[in-house]
Amino acid sequence: MLKARVEIKLKKGIVDPEGKNIKKALNLLQFNEVKNVKVAKVFEIEIEGDDEEKARDRIEAMCRRLLANPVINDYKIDIIREND
Amino acid sequence: MLKARVEIKLKKGIVDPEGKNIKKALNLLQFNEVKNVKVAKVFEIEIEGDDEEKARDRIEAMCRRLLANPVINDYKIDIIREND
Repeated sequence: MLKARVEIKLKKGIVDPEGKNIKKALNLLQFNEVKNVKVAKVFEIEIEGDDEEKARDRIEAMCRRLLANPVINDYKIDIIREND
Repeated sequence: MLKARVEIKLKKGIVDPEGKNIKKALNLLQFNEVKNVKVAKVFEIEIEGDDEEKARDRIEAMCRRLLANPVINDYKIDIIREND
């Protein structure tokens, strides 16, 4: 069993309205030192099999087909070997 | 300027319906090797100041007051020093 960690974030230059609103909310709560907030999403995916190379290719395909929007998202894939 | 990375995820044992649905969708797309999916959220927060200890305390407070729900979420804070 392998575990993959996929982090999906907005590409540089894409406006992040959720982050902007969280920044505003934090400032309203007197956290005035907060200058910027960006939001990203992480998927931890458990995959059957032991072939890291193949797992990475499959996860790439998942990102392209479902997890990420190639117009606005960048993604980073880390494969973690599970001890079981 | 410091940057903090806050990862917010569901506590162990809390049902993750979004993850479950993504797993189902991936299986339907013929990614049958996917056995489990968990979803987490990352906030990248830029903070004025240079005191890492203080920044960590403030980020903790932000998590308690706004970013995380202590009933269902665990969070992890990493402080990254920016070179500027």
